[in-house]
Amino acid sequence: MKVGDTAFRSIWVESATGEVRIIDQRWLPHEFRVVSLKTLDEFATAIRDMWVRGAPLIGATAAYGMAIEMARDPSDASLDHAWEVLHETRPTAINLRWALDDMRGLLSPLAPAARADAAIRRAHAVADEDVETNRRIGLHGLEIIREIARSKPKGEPVNILTHCNAGWLATVDWGTATSPMYQAVEAGLDIHVWVDETRPRNQGAQLTAWEMNSHGISHRLIVDNAGGHMMQHGQVDMVIVGTDRTTASGDVCNKIGTYLKALAARDNDVPFYVALPSSTIDWTVNDGVREIPIEERDDGEVTKVFGKLDDGSVASVQISPDGTRGANPAFDVTPARLVTGLITERGVAEASREGLLKLFPERRTAA
Amino acid sequence: MKVGDTAFRSIWVESATGEVRIIDQRWLPHEFRVVSLKTLDEFATAIRDMWVRGAPLIGATAAYGMAIEMARDPSDASLDHAWEVLHETRPTAINLRWALDDMRGLLSPLAPAARADAAIRRAHAVADEDVETNRRIGLHGLEIIREIARSKPKGEPVNILTHCNAGWLATVDWGTATSPMYQAVEAGLDIHVWVDETRPRNQGAQLTAWEMNSHGISHRLIVDNAGGHMMQHGQVDMVIVGTDRTTASGDVCNKIGTYLKALAARDNDVPFYVALPSSTIDWTVNDGVREIPIEERDDGEVTKVFGKLDDGSVASVQISPDGTRGANPAFDVTPARLVTGLITERGVAEASREGLLKLFPERRTAA
Repeated sequence: MKVGDTAFRSIWVESATGEVRIIDQRWLPHEFRVVSLKTLDEFATAIRDMWVRGAPLIGATAAYGMAIEMARDPSDASLDHAWEVLHETRPTAINLRWALDDMRGLLSPLAPAARADAAIRRAHAVADEDVETNRRIGLHGLEIIREIARSKPKGEPVNILTHCNAGWLATVDWGTATSPMYQAVEAGLDIHVWVDETRPRNQGAQLTAWEMNSHGISHRLIVDNAGGHMMQHGQVDMVIVGTDRTTASGDVCNKIGTYLKALAARDNDVPFYVALPSSTIDWTVNDGVREIPIEERDDGEVTKVFGKLDDGSVASVQISPDGTRGANPAFDVTPARLVTGLITERGVAEASREGLLKLFPERRTAA
Repeated sequence: MKVGDTAFRSIWVESATGEVRIIDQRWLPHEFRVVSLKTLDEFATAIRDMWVRGAPLIGATAAYGMAIEMARDPSDASLDHAWEVLHETRPTAINLRWALDDMRGLLSPLAPAARADAAIRRAHAVADEDVETNRRIGLHGLEIIREIARSKPKGEPVNILTHCNAGWLATVDWGTATSPMYQAVEAGLDIHVWVDETRPRNQGAQLTAWEMNSHGISHRLIVDNAGGHMMQHGQVDMVIVGTDRTTASGDVCNKIGTYLKALAARDNDVPFYVALPSSTIDWTVNDGVREIPIEERDDGEVTKVFGKLDDGSVASVQISPDGTRGANPAFDVTPARLVTGLITERGVAEASREGLLKLFPERRTAA
């Protein structure tokens, strides 16, 4: 999407040089740094040290990393080495593994001389498929926004609340939760976005607010505590969030705090939508609260906050007393009963096994 | 309560010198600074610039401020002047107005020569009454904790979640929401406190965590997003929060985000208690969500976070992009239907008009 007047993807190939470029997201929102990734090690560092993040973007970065390595050395040993080096950067990331296996499965049967070309074409395809999936999610979500817009008094924007960053920065373009917002703006609808800051890592404040600001979408930053009050007072027309993992029954595992917003939405009859590529549906899991293990992260994320000082430099400040420890569950599960609908690339599903199977009938036999 | 091995109040008179001392709370949790207030101007500054905060403590500070001024000049003009100077420090604070009117009402009829002595005695009484009220709240809350402790497996603490700081730092001693916790510890019960950081001003991280840490109560700091997940997983046995204003029907206006925790408590059958001195009950208001205006504070509180840098100095960091504005509602209203009980100095009331009138029958005729 746009940064000022220029359209960007989160990863792209510079046509003049063939160099792969990314946005080094560690510096957002305080600095917009574009960097070139030229070697396998640089790709590995970018994934490991979270210059790029978000499952789809990690997958695309890994695909491009393998393509760059094939251009240097397309041997079997090099192919295996690239898989290993990239895989160990974030070994629990499902999309990373998927992209690497996909690339190796394609390249392994080919003669080494044919690999470089096939690899870069496949990497482009991985990226384009992500963009197309998200674009479609946006179009389905747009219809929901359009419907709400019709019911609003003239001159009033549709107020959308979102949590964390399921934005274009987490994908190759459009984002998932943000895609309907971008589509709405392109369609000329009047929207306003309430951005949850999303403690502890503040992805809302750092990334979603930056996206909105850069693309020129009307928005305000709010603390994670505020959404319930705003819903009580009619200031939120709908919620759209992303998801890291969706169960076969429609439970949604997403950034910590999502569940609280879903409860408030239900209590105030505000529709609560989750936008997702169908690749995040885990058809093997039913009861999200019971079955999904929740990552407990470093408590320094709770006791410290990162930001920009008055002099423009960046630093972390400790908000709590020395001696107080934090607890830091990274995700929570929103039960399907609280979800109005799941916005996928195929359309909007009811958050239930039956609702999902209607959109994905090929899963009926598998289930 | 205790800071290390020493018992403190949040305001006290040094017996050797007659000086009034307070904790300059602006530096907590990073520095524990005790300061003497010697002149009317110093008292006014301490209230205006929030060296002291919390309705009961503000009231007590104003009472002492008036007493100090009467010792210097007990004239009618001085009495009126002291009322004015102290009142304009925080003109919307109900307790401040109440304490000042109470003092002037007592002192005005007296001969000037009798005022200094009467004033300091009354200031002591204001402080002592607050302590006694909170002590009683704690004893009633203690019985609830004791009951929950009985139902827990041996060796497991009672896990209590709290939001914001309704602690001894906001009162003269004991606090309101924290009083049952301190009483439980004194009674030898095993408790553990989950402290919500309470964005935007982080009173949980800065004040409640400091209280727990200083008194030696087992606790962990969590982000405001985490409580729902913890309740889903049985990690919270009860919630106790304070309130700024309670309606005659039992609705509770408290720091923003309280409502979200009440929703999660209800969804997971976790008891949700509110601790309050009956002075915070506004018998003229019924429907809190509709009738209570919510203060919208400066958006810099949302976009910036205060804390301690690595070198030990304190600073604020901006977490959001330049150009993104915040919205900052300071309180929300938790409807009575979500409140398990109101813990007052007279006992625990059901959160309803009838429940409150049972404990405060003198209000029946007034209603």
